[in-house]
Amino acid sequence: MAEEVRAPAAAIRRQLEDVFAAWGLSEAEIGPTVDVMVETDLRGVDSHGLAMLPLYAQWRRNGMLTFPAQIRVVRESPVTGLIDGGNGLGHAPSVRAMSLAVAKAKQIGLAAVAVRRSNHFGAAGAYALIAARAGLIGLAATSAGSATIVPTRGRKPMFGTNPLAFAAPAGRNKPFVLDMATSTVAVGKVKLAWFAGKPLPPGWTLDPQGRQVTDAAEAFDGHGRVKPGYGMTPLGGLPEMSSHKGYGLAAMVEILCAMLPGATYIGTRDARRGKVDRQDVGHFFLALDPAAFRDFGDYAFDVDDMVDALRASEPVDPKQPVLVAGDPEDASYAERSRDGVPLPAKLIEQVRDIARESNARFSLLDGG
Amino acid sequence: MAEEVRAPAAAIRRQLEDVFAAWGLSEAEIGPTVDVMVETDLRGVDSHGLAMLPLYAQWRRNGMLTFPAQIRVVRESPVTGLIDGGNGLGHAPSVRAMSLAVAKAKQIGLAAVAVRRSNHFGAAGAYALIAARAGLIGLAATSAGSATIVPTRGRKPMFGTNPLAFAAPAGRNKPFVLDMATSTVAVGKVKLAWFAGKPLPPGWTLDPQGRQVTDAAEAFDGHGRVKPGYGMTPLGGLPEMSSHKGYGLAAMVEILCAMLPGATYIGTRDARRGKVDRQDVGHFFLALDPAAFRDFGDYAFDVDDMVDALRASEPVDPKQPVLVAGDPEDASYAERSRDGVPLPAKLIEQVRDIARESNARFSLLDGG
Repeated sequence: MAEEVRAPAAAIRRQLEDVFAAWGLSEAEIGPTVDVMVETDLRGVDSHGLAMLPLYAQWRRNGMLTFPAQIRVVRESPVTGLIDGGNGLGHAPSVRAMSLAVAKAKQIGLAAVAVRRSNHFGAAGAYALIAARAGLIGLAATSAGSATIVPTRGRKPMFGTNPLAFAAPAGRNKPFVLDMATSTVAVGKVKLAWFAGKPLPPGWTLDPQGRQVTDAAEAFDGHGRVKPGYGMTPLGGLPEMSSHKGYGLAAMVEILCAMLPGATYIGTRDARRGKVDRQDVGHFFLALDPAAFRDFGDYAFDVDDMVDALRASEPVDPKQPVLVAGDPEDASYAERSRDGVPLPAKLIEQVRDIARESNARFSLLDGG
Repeated sequence: MAEEVRAPAAAIRRQLEDVFAAWGLSEAEIGPTVDVMVETDLRGVDSHGLAMLPLYAQWRRNGMLTFPAQIRVVRESPVTGLIDGGNGLGHAPSVRAMSLAVAKAKQIGLAAVAVRRSNHFGAAGAYALIAARAGLIGLAATSAGSATIVPTRGRKPMFGTNPLAFAAPAGRNKPFVLDMATSTVAVGKVKLAWFAGKPLPPGWTLDPQGRQVTDAAEAFDGHGRVKPGYGMTPLGGLPEMSSHKGYGLAAMVEILCAMLPGATYIGTRDARRGKVDRQDVGHFFLALDPAAFRDFGDYAFDVDDMVDALRASEPVDPKQPVLVAGDPEDASYAERSRDGVPLPAKLIEQVRDIARESNARFSLLDGG
């Protein structure tokens, strides 16, 4: 098989639907989960779409996921909501949470919904975009199931990569979509360097003594995961480059996603609970209606003005124009909707194995 | 006179009250403005308290500030508000905006208030803290009056330093308070290197061609201000250290502070308006009640658990313990409340000149 095969979105969708049905997810879970994962692949966030399936399968084998998940709104007010994810995958309760925030914000102007007892929800940007497509400003964030970010001055990981996404609708332009881990780089970027055998820039990863690691093979195991004791720096990377800001942002995300809904803080989870049988990840979603502040058209005109000015701003290298958050993902979406999603041969093999062990049909490579 | 004199907070307070009264600020403006500035000095954010007075005086001389300012709530709903700052200093409308957000959030769980037609508001953390002291999670952000941050790949500053503050109440511990410019470092830090004649770390500042500048004297004029055409990097500093994240955060702050309330986007301001006679800075404030999601005591217990775990986390250097956002400012507050605020001789001279030209009493060095 070629190193890489292009699969149409419809084939990825069908394959995910078949596997999730075999795993016992309800129809109500399968729809939003597959929607988010396929869109994530189309938008080029390769680490967070189909490529997550092997890890989900591993968690399922280890008894860490519950299917079908009982997703319940456990508390609600005109502007807030709290959802119990029922220990399933994070996508379905998160789509429900942001949709609830959007519905409330459309009514009253502003709303926030948090989720507890959840797991990995894919790419945060997907949820912020739900708000932006409804004409609202959206914020999405999540805690994570494994500790990765080492605080400034520290040597032990005390947070997940705690990503944060912010989306804002524009007028003529596509929505502004910032989707960022609060670590200097996402783990996926280090994996890519590890695959390619390239040295890491100093300031991405740390060893158990808190020293910079530039050899990816030292910090990452055979599966491209961070080795125990090793960690990632917070955004900023080095203290003199203000890594305390990335550290602070990671803590902010933890407060909104773990302390606010009552999910588990990863920094003390293992000490408190011993062997972990569920991750109890939390998420936070906020939707804000610009029309509650001023005429929406005036707001959108001003966002377009900013976006246009940034794109027209003189670049250092004329071949590398200034981009706006969301531009690379929008370009990927257009290209992959037409030409399919590139899938590494290794991932296809893993999906084949998962389909087999799940008694699901392996259909990924069937004609779209 | 010594290089540095300690002044008690009461003396700074009295001096600011006298100058602002002479400038024609109303009593309703003077109270909150002085409160915020003095607290900022006590908390050790030297660049944003009394040290701003010379710049405020210069803006006033140039006709860029209106005193007294007509501060008005121009639009309001149970969860949102829009305030017109009346082109005065930003502190008074900002205290009013966050206080309004807090009052609404106490009623309903969540609220956001934005401000337009404003100016510099001092340290963003002061406003986030208003929420945290009321038992709420607070977010505060502001656009800025001069372009400083250069987008990733770009060579022209397109944003102010667009700071963002987040505060969260704890139980036994003081509130968590993150207060950060979305540039790699605040301009004040570069000023300090410039004063000290030290080279800048690569990745802090850029020349008009977008190249890194390490000689502070090249990038800063005789007043320690960024020279025209020069700029600051977004948090991350270099593209391979994810400066696009800092750039994205700066744009997020601009959308919330300029596009949402209808303040002016700095990236196109000069082109649109020619000579600037007012800055039209905008601010954004959000307050969120943890008790709308779960029992406040349970929430506070979990925040304490995180804060305690971070402080107890093993440091690289035992003499440099891991800190939590807000720790340095709390330590400074305790020390300066007792021993006074250290003021450089040069700043005292500037305040003396401002008092003289304003026909205000110079009382800064009188006994507290």
